[in-house]
This record gives sequence, C-alpha cells and structure tokens, in this order.
Amino acid sequence: MAKKIPSRSKSSMLTQEENRKDLGFGTKITSERVRLINKDGTFNVRRVGDSFLNSVNWYHRLIILGWRKFFGIIFLFYFLLNIVFACLYLFIGIEYLEGISNEHQQPAFWEAFFFSAQTLTTVGYGRISPTGFWANSVAGLEALIGLLLIALATGLFYGRFSRSVPRIRFSKNIVVAPYLDINGLMFRIIHERDNELIDLDVEMTLSCLDTLPSGAKIRKYYPLDLERDHVNFFPLNWTLVHPITEDSPLANATEKSLADADAEFLIMIRAIDETFMQQVHVRFSYHYEELLWGAKFEPMFDTSVQGDIAVRVSDIDRYQPASLNT
Amino acid sequence: MAKKIPSRSKSSMLTQEENRKDLGFGTKITSERVRLINKDGTFNVRRVGDSFLNSVNWYHRLIILGWRKFFGIIFLFYFLLNIVFACLYLFIGIEYLEGISNEHQQPAFWEAFFFSAQTLTTVGYGRISPTGFWANSVAGLEALIGLLLIALATGLFYGRFSRSVPRIRFSKNIVVAPYLDINGLMFRIIHERDNELIDLDVEMTLSCLDTLPSGAKIRKYYPLDLERDHVNFFPLNWTLVHPITEDSPLANATEKSLADADAEFLIMIRAIDETFMQQVHVRFSYHYEELLWGAKFEPMFDTSVQGDIAVRVSDIDRYQPASLNT
Amino acid sequence: MAKKIPSRSKSSMLTQEENRKDLGFGTKITSERVRLINKDGTFNVRRVGDSFLNSVNWYHRLIILGWRKFFGIIFLFYFLLNIVFACLYLFIGIEYLEGISNEHQQPAFWEAFFFSAQTLTTVGYGRISPTGFWANSVAGLEALIGLLLIALATGLFYGRFSRSVPRIRFSKNIVVAPYLDINGLMFRIIHERDNELIDLDVEMTLSCLDTLPSGAKIRKYYPLDLERDHVNFFPLNWTLVHPITEDSPLANATEKSLADADAEFLIMIRAIDETFMQQVHVRFSYHYEELLWGAKFEPMFDTSVQGDIAVRVSDIDRYQPASLNT
Amino acid sequence: MAKKIPSRSKSSMLTQEENRKDLGFGTKITSERVRLINKDGTFNVRRVGDSFLNSVNWYHRLIILGWRKFFGIIFLFYFLLNIVFACLYLFIGIEYLEGISNEHQQPAFWEAFFFSAQTLTTVGYGRISPTGFWANSVAGLEALIGLLLIALATGLFYGRFSRSVPRIRFSKNIVVAPYLDINGLMFRIIHERDNELIDLDVEMTLSCLDTLPSGAKIRKYYPLDLERDHVNFFPLNWTLVHPITEDSPLANATEKSLADADAEFLIMIRAIDETFMQQVHVRFSYHYEELLWGAKFEPMFDTSVQGDIAVRVSDIDRYQPASLNT
Repeated sequence: MAKKIPSRSKSSMLTQEENRKDLGFGTKITSERVRLINKDGTFNVRRVGDSFLNSVNWYHRLIILGWRKFFGIIFLFYFLLNIVFACLYLFIGIEYLEGISNEHQQPAFWEAFFFSAQTLTTVGYGRISPTGFWANSVAGLEALIGLLLIALATGLFYGRFSRSVPRIRFSKNIVVAPYLDINGLMFRIIHERDNELIDLDVEMTLSCLDTLPSGAKIRKYYPLDLERDHVNFFPLNWTLVHPITEDSPLANATEKSLADADAEFLIMIRAIDETFMQQVHVRFSYHYEELLWGAKFEPMFDTSVQGDIAVRVSDIDRYQPASLNT
Repeated sequence: MAKKIPSRSKSSMLTQEENRKDLGFGTKITSERVRLINKDGTFNVRRVGDSFLNSVNWYHRLIILGWRKFFGIIFLFYFLLNIVFACLYLFIGIEYLEGISNEHQQPAFWEAFFFSAQTLTTVGYGRISPTGFWANSVAGLEALIGLLLIALATGLFYGRFSRSVPRIRFSKNIVVAPYLDINGLMFRIIHERDNELIDLDVEMTLSCLDTLPSGAKIRKYYPLDLERDHVNFFPLNWTLVHPITEDSPLANATEKSLADADAEFLIMIRAIDETFMQQVHVRFSYHYEELLWGAKFEPMFDTSVQGDIAVRVSDIDRYQPASLNT
Repeated sequence: MAKKIPSRSKSSMLTQEENRKDLGFGTKITSERVRLINKDGTFNVRRVGDSFLNSVNWYHRLIILGWRKFFGIIFLFYFLLNIVFACLYLFIGIEYLEGISNEHQQPAFWEAFFFSAQTLTTVGYGRISPTGFWANSVAGLEALIGLLLIALATGLFYGRFSRSVPRIRFSKNIVVAPYLDINGLMFRIIHERDNELIDLDVEMTLSCLDTLPSGAKIRKYYPLDLERDHVNFFPLNWTLVHPITEDSPLANATEKSLADADAEFLIMIRAIDETFMQQVHVRFSYHYEELLWGAKFEPMFDTSVQGDIAVRVSDIDRYQPASLNT
Repeated sequence: MAKKIPSRSKSSMLTQEENRKDLGFGTKITSERVRLINKDGTFNVRRVGDSFLNSVNWYHRLIILGWRKFFGIIFLFYFLLNIVFACLYLFIGIEYLEGISNEHQQPAFWEAFFFSAQTLTTVGYGRISPTGFWANSVAGLEALIGLLLIALATGLFYGRFSRSVPRIRFSKNIVVAPYLDINGLMFRIIHERDNELIDLDVEMTLSCLDTLPSGAKIRKYYPLDLERDHVNFFPLNWTLVHPITEDSPLANATEKSLADADAEFLIMIRAIDETFMQQVHVRFSYHYEELLWGAKFEPMFDTSVQGDIAVRVSDIDRYQPASLNT
C-alpha cells in the first residue's frame, strides 16, 4: 500500500516555532541549578554512551592541556620508551652493544637505557654502538621512531604556541545602573594581553524558565539588544549596555522574578586576533546571583601615567552604588 | 566579413533557467541507481582522460590516508631508501667504510645498510664512518636527504594531526513524523568528539528525476526549508525538521512517487571547529530507501547521569512508530 | 590666513564617477597590445623605482618557485656553506681536527669539507672531531646554524606542500553559441585534481577601450552577468554562460568592434579548497582573438565508463560549429 | 525587599547614543597632543596595573621582533644553556666525561661546554662521551631539551617567515585637491612588495574634538565616504578620494578649525594576501599637520619602461600645487 504524506497550509504553530530563538540548547533543560555555560566558556553538557577512544580528539586534548602537564607527558613518554628499548637490547644480548665499559661498574640495564636515549634523540655518541643484525635493526628502528616523535612534538609545540587564546577579562559582576535617562544592564570587558583584538562583535542572550499553562516548565531564550554591539578596535576597556526600555525582556523584572526564572545572561564575543589574523570566539555567562542592583562602574583611566593614554586593568571590577532612574 | 552578435530582450526561457536551482551536478545525471553523494560525503563522480600523475594531489592523498597506511608507507620508504644507499656504498667499495668489524660475521651488505640508516637518521654513532671522497660525498648527501625527508614528515604529521575532521553522526534513517499540527521530514545529528563545533548552518536539498513532456528525464533540485537552519552552539543533539506544508516539494508525495523519482535528500552542513577556528563542511545524503514513514525519534537525554546535562550518543538511531497528522 | 575648503552639493559628475566600475586597473591603461591579466593569472604590471631587496618577499618567492629550482637552491646552499666552514677549519689549522687519517691520501680541504657536512647535518660520526677552543667553537656554531637551517627548510617544505594551488582548467576558447532562444558567451572549466573545490563563485568583466568626445581613449570595465554564478559542488565540468540580451554590453557587438576596443574578458573565481578549508582565488582572461563565433561545446560525459558518473577532462576544448539564433 | 527594574519607552537620548559612531576609543580621550593611531599602526594606549608576565603574549612578542634581535636571543640562549650544562657536568665530575684529552691543554670547563654543545645540537661526535649514571642522565636530558628547543625554534621560524606582513606605503601627505567639479580629500597607497594583495576595502574616519554646551570637550568620530572604497586587484597605485560635498563633515572646514579640533584622519584597510590567502588589516592615520591645501598628486606611470605597464613606487609622495574649485 502506497503511503502518502498529508500536508496542510502553513500553521500558526509552525510560524511561532520558527520565530522562537534557540542557541542550540533546546527547551528541555529545566533543572534550576545547572548553568548552561561555565565561567571558562565550556558547556555544561556531557556526551555519554560512546567509547572514550572513539570520542576523544587527541589533538584537541594535547593542545588545551596546561604547559606543565604537557611537558610532564613528554618526559614520562621519553622515560618509558627508553625503558622499553633498553629491555629489547637486553633481550637481544648486551654483548651486541659494543663498547660498554665496566670501569664505572654500571649495570647492563642502565647502559642499554642510555644507549637507547642516545639513539632516540639521534645524538649517537658512538662510544656504545650496535653490532650484529638484530641490535642494528632495533637501533635503526628506534632512530626512525625518534625522528617521527620529534616531528610530532614539533607540530604540537607549534600548534600550542601559535594558537590564539584571547584573554578577555569580564567584570566580576553584571550591574543594573542608571543609563542616560533610563536604566541599563551593564558589564565591561578588557583584553589582558599586549597583542590586539580587532573587529569585536558581542551578542547577549537571556536564558530563563517559562511556565506553560500546563504547569510544565520550558527554557526560553531572549536576545538582549545592546546600545552598541560592534567596535573596530579594542585597545581600551569596553562597557556593554543593554538599555532597559519597555521593549526589553527585562522590563519590570525583579530580583525575585529573575531568581525564579533561573535567569542566566549568555554572552558571545567574536573578534579577530591581529597577531594570527584568526577569528576567535569567547563565551561567558553571568548567573542571576552575579547581578548587582543600583551600581555603576568606576572609570579605569589612569591619569597618573604621563604621555600615553593609560587604562588600569585591575580596576575592571570596581563599582560604586548608584540610584536608578525611575 | 564582420560577424555580429544578434541579441534579444530577456526571454522567459532565460528567466526560468536562471531560477532553476543547481548544486553543480547539472540536469543530465538521470541514471536511477547512482547516488550523487556517498555516505562518506564524497561525490560519485570520476574525472578521467587525464594522466594519473597530473591529476593526483599528493598532499591531499597523504593527508586523508589512514594512519596505518601512512606509517606503512613511511617504514617502507625508509627501508627502500636504505637499500638504495647500501648498494651505493657497496658499489664504491665496502673498504671505504672504516670500522666494519668481522666479529659478528655480518655480511657487508647489512653493514652498509645499517650505516646508511645511521646516516639517514643523523644518529651517526661513528663506529663505522666513511673515508675517501666518494663514500664521504654519498654520506654527506644522504644526511641532507635525511633531513629534508624529516622536514617533509614533520609537515605531513602536523598537517594530518592538526586538520579538523568533524565527526558529525547522522541518524541512520530520515523519518516522516508528526510535527506540531502538521507533519515533518526529520533527521538528527550529534557531534561524536569532545571538542566543540559552533555556528552550524544546515541546508537540505531534494534531488529527483522529472519527466519532460517529450518523455526524456532530467534531474531537478528543490530546496527543502528547515524550521531552523542555524544554531550557535552544538553541545547536544539536534533534530532538523522540514515542515511538510502545502508549499513543500514533498506535499502529497507517496512512497512510490519518491521511488519513481529516485529521490535523494542531500544535506550540507557548515560549522566552525573551535579547536582550530576553522570552517568545516560536512556532506551527507539519504536515499529514498532510508526514509521511514510514521516514526518519531526518542529523546536522547540520559537522566541516570547526575549533575551535568547528559546525552547518550548511541541513542541517535532510536525511534518509535507514530501516526501522522492528517 | 586661514584656508577654507569650498564645497558644493553632490554633483552629477561625482555620481557618474561613483557608478563607474573599476577592478583596480584604472582608466589610463590604453595601450592596445597589453593584456591586463596573463594566462597564468598574474598581472601585466611592474612596480619599479624601489630597491630589489626592499620589494622582494622572500617567502613568496621561495613558495612559488618550481620544485626543481627549489631543490637546486637547497643543494647549492649546502655545498657553499660547507666550503665556507671548510675554509674556516683550514684557517684554524687542520691539526685541530683530530682523527684525520692519511690512509686514503685525501687532501686536507676535503677532510675539512666532509667534517663540516657531518657537523651541519648533526650526523657527527666522530671519526674526525674538533679539539681546542676555536675548532670547537666553530663546530658548535655550525651545528646551531645547521639546526636553524633545518627549521627553515621544514617550514618552507610544509608551506609549499600544504599550500592550496587549485588547478582549474579553462577551455582554450570562449565561444558565442546559441543558448535557449537567444545567444550566449560561453566558456567552461573543470578541476584537474582529485581533491574537491566547493562553493565556487565566478565573476566576468569586459575590459575595453572607449573613445571620449575629445578623441582620447580610456579603458572601461563592464560586468557581464552570468546565467548562474555560484555552485555548491564542482565534481563535474561547468559551462559558464553570459546570456547576450539587449541589456548586455555585448549586444550588437561585431568581431571588428571587439578588436577595435581591445576587448579582454576578465574572469575571477573564488572557491574553497576542501583539503585545506582555505579560500582560493583564480584569475584568467580571454583576449578577443580567443573568441570563436558560432561554436558550441561538446558534452564531456564519458559513457564508456561503467558504474560511476565519468567526465573526460581532455575533452574540455572540444566544440562543434553551431549557427546562432537570430 | 524585591528590587524591580524601572523601565521607560525608548528615549531620544538613547537613539542619539545608538547612532553615535565609535571605533572603540570612546569619547573621553580629549588631550590634544595625543595621536590615537601611530604611524606604524599601533594604538597610543597602555594597559597598566597587570603583572608583566601575565599580560605579555610571548608568541606575539617573538613574532614581531626584528630578525637581528631574534637571532641574538637564540645565540645568547644557546650560549647560556651550554654554560649551565657545563657547570652540571663539572659538578658531577669531569672524569665521567670519557675521552677528554690533555693534548691541547684546554681547561675542563671548556671541554664540558663543548661536550654540552655537541649534545644539545645532537651532533654527538663521541670523542667525549658520558659514562656513569649521572653524566649519562644529564646528557640524556640535555639531548631531549635540545630537541624540544629545536621544535620551538622551527615553529617560531615558520611562524615569522610565513606571516603575512603587507607593506602598503601611504603618501607622506593627505591633500585637499580639485576633484571633478568639486574638491576632494585625497591620499594614495601602493603595495611595495612583489606578491599581490587582492580585494581591498578601505574605511576613513575623522576623529575630532567637539565642545559641549557645558564647555567640556568630547571626542567624536565621523565617517568620511569614499568615492570608491573597494578594488578587486591592487597591482598599481590607488588614489583614495573623499569628495567634499555639502554633506561632508569637512564642508566649510578651515585650517584653523581642523587644528582646534585636533583632527586626525584614521584609515583602516582590509585586504587578502594572495600568497597566504589570509586576511590582513592595515591601520594608518594622518594628523592635521600632514594635510596639504591645494595640491594634487602627480601620475606614477613610468613610460620609460618598455612593454609592461610600469609604476614608479618612489613617486608616491610627489605632488604639485593646484587651485581648488570654488
């Protein structure tokens, strides 16, 4: 029997669904104590049910690893690989490593271990050298492996070192402050590093829970318009302002209503790192507990510095109380 | 005699041609058993008539090769190159390789072979060393070649390792499911790896055969609008929906009509890989046999995992029967 | 005395100038025998008056050099550098290179030369080794220089190998052919290599000389609209068509009028190379002598190949006479 | 007590603020002797109050360093590292470095120093070789460190060498010249290097001080429209023109009014470097003192060069007096 797709003219439900804003988290995350975006920009989501080896992206892991751990892994790997090859040389027979002296009475294992190290790094002093087919074969293989590992290390080093990691610092709090003749939701940012970010674009979204007529809760997302969402240059600090007009999703919001709705302010920044000429993305979020009412940021210009224009990075969190416009 | 281009005001045939959608396959592929896009995203097209050496892009080949084959080629190449150089040293005369011992009674060929390996990898133990003009020249050349090959291997390693290969997993089937108060064509995707894809854009196109009044068949392409074709983030699974309204090319389609038209659903995804900050493209296609009628996907949230939001990757293909809206 | 900028309301001359299309060549290139874009995509322009060393971009030069010349330079450089260091060792005194044997009666220069080669490549067999402060210092420096040069070679190798050089082949001729119920200016392209180009955008511009009322000639540029200027995929050949309607700059053009105007068809292609996920740009131009009147391209599908869809690359230039629509 | 955000319908002050152009410098930089953008494109801004180590981006620093300083640092680092390791070997005991000869009466320190150099560069001649556990361990570690440093140097070399540094040369002066039937603000640019920049986009902004009714000064930014702000190709010089019509912010400006307002013309160029297929950004600024009144640029075409079209780079600053249109 032939199946047929029934169809209807465009429904109002569809129009409504198409206009619903969604960042990609969907409507079903309704647990109230779970942040969507962590302070370091990662998502609060785990993908399970797939084997670890299948899901891990080794390059990604080795690139984002801290430098201390990265070097730890390299040294450990070097140590273990030498132990493996030392055992191989002992298995073949220490007598095939010509030139081992007994002068310092070092055990055969360490002699084989250091010979291995000299081969892996391609130093090859030659006081000890392999003789016979098998010792020579293993040494030849080890030198090749050494070179490939150097190639790998070179790539990783370059990948880590040359990756753009923008260090945009966000003010500790997001504040509701008087703004012109109305009020605004404000936070501010500064680039901590001495290279330049240019062409910044900023987007802010309010994530909060809505109660359906049925009593069920769904998560909704509202864009928060910014007074200015793009700058060409970013040498100074930048205060971002969402003007709270009557059209704002925050109009008439109260401290309690935001807490009830588990409000989270999601911030996305796109910029270009001028050293690498690479686009970078930065995510951040403020939870409703980090919102201050009636506070305004203090200027960050440092007038004590002569000549140049100077901004004091450490002042980014400083604010003072301010009564809101009514 | 001067030739002159006759011209006419814009014809209706031209307007029609300009509005015809074409992905780049043209209208002439009318064989019914041929998929346009394979399951791995490659095209089902061969370019012939050009010499192999001229058409092959070696970098491309060595980059997309599996890791096992890649290492196989490296080891084989190392082995063969040492054989070539060993023969060269034998040709010059084994007596020009000073220090060859007869202790272990190894044939001259292997001594030359291992000396070559020590030179190519720049280990250079020095138990055996070249003397005389020719042996020294060949050894000097071999060391240089060794270094250039290491440079090449380093580049390839880095190129392979640092290339973004997004692993978006598609549901095994595309389904016709009830959607709001109408029906929709749905499939879903998830990213299998632990790094993030952001700013996804998805496009879906229906490719099918049309019969001309003359009886000839031509292939046509229809865009299928999606309820939502962009997300900023992709930490969870994403179900893509083409709402089957009266305007849809699928309105009133039946199982038989799709089979007759050799329907293929072509999917293109653009995203940004956050580790590499590189744009990636993913292609996929569903043939009409992979379409299920009256089925809806089951949720993938895993509520057994405490704390974080968790999605079970292996559940992506799970569906249950569902009666369509009429 | 203060100067003041006089100003006027917007003039019609300004509006006209703002609407004039210009690719960046300006209006003053009026010599008739000079192509603007060469067949290999380079511009027919020289920048003089600047010192060679200041204007040359070494990376660019070493990257676009042919492979044979590239290797030639590397080998020559290696040879010369060893000669320099050999002279340095001879200057210090050959007796500071311990282990030079007189067995094979090789002159001191070559011993120093090969010792230098062993140091530069970091092979360091050690049969010959430096003693004393100066020989050791020079050897230490040479090894460091060797490593830095290897680093440079590695970078260049990778840069050359991993650079996307799209090989789009253009049909030898551009033709005026019957097209639907009118005529069209057509050329066709195919990608010769086995990796994929995607998201192609094509632009065509007519460059020709116009005579001003004063009798002076200026070069003008007219965009030529294409029936289709974008494809998502490019696995097959693609015929680009500029429909010659009454609005076309080519309407009523004759062979003589194009020759008189020194007509050149400039073509720009933007695409994404899928292996590198890098945008590539290709330029090409057809001069009026390469235009064929009343010819249409023959299909390139190869039906003798079973199974896959097959295109014969070498057929790209094939055409047959066709009478134009009137 | 629940706080509530008061809100108002959109205010006229907000609209005005939203329409104010801002490049990212803000309105508060009112010191008259401070340029915003230096001649080399850097910003005249310092970020203070953060620790040096925290704010410095080492990759960025090492990449923008001059070549002479870069090599100086490498050689110094090599020298110091060898001194450190030489001391370590002396501490362990010079007798553990086998093969040190007293023939040339070199002090033990230098023998250890050169042995260290041979290990760090992985040359490893082997005349001197480590014996015993500790000497061997230090040597094994040194060889590994040597390899990692080579990896780092390789990455930096490639990063420096392959970075696109466009060398767009700006005319020394910006001029007010007659243009068509009105006047224009003009400057011109040329690319000094032999590789190509394509798809250039140029933006010009006037930065000047405005006096508020209160007498306070604020810095304002006005976009200056260009007659043409994009070219596809850039093989020749390009003269950029802001037509001074009645709508221009410069209408009726005088030499004195520009000086009083501390006028600075900020220029931003975006282009694609064809060798690297990378987007590049160039910044430049002209201060009011660099503005010439009634001068027009002389042509740069060099007609003495036969065959090709030739442009004389060194003529970029040449101008002649010209009386303005009134």
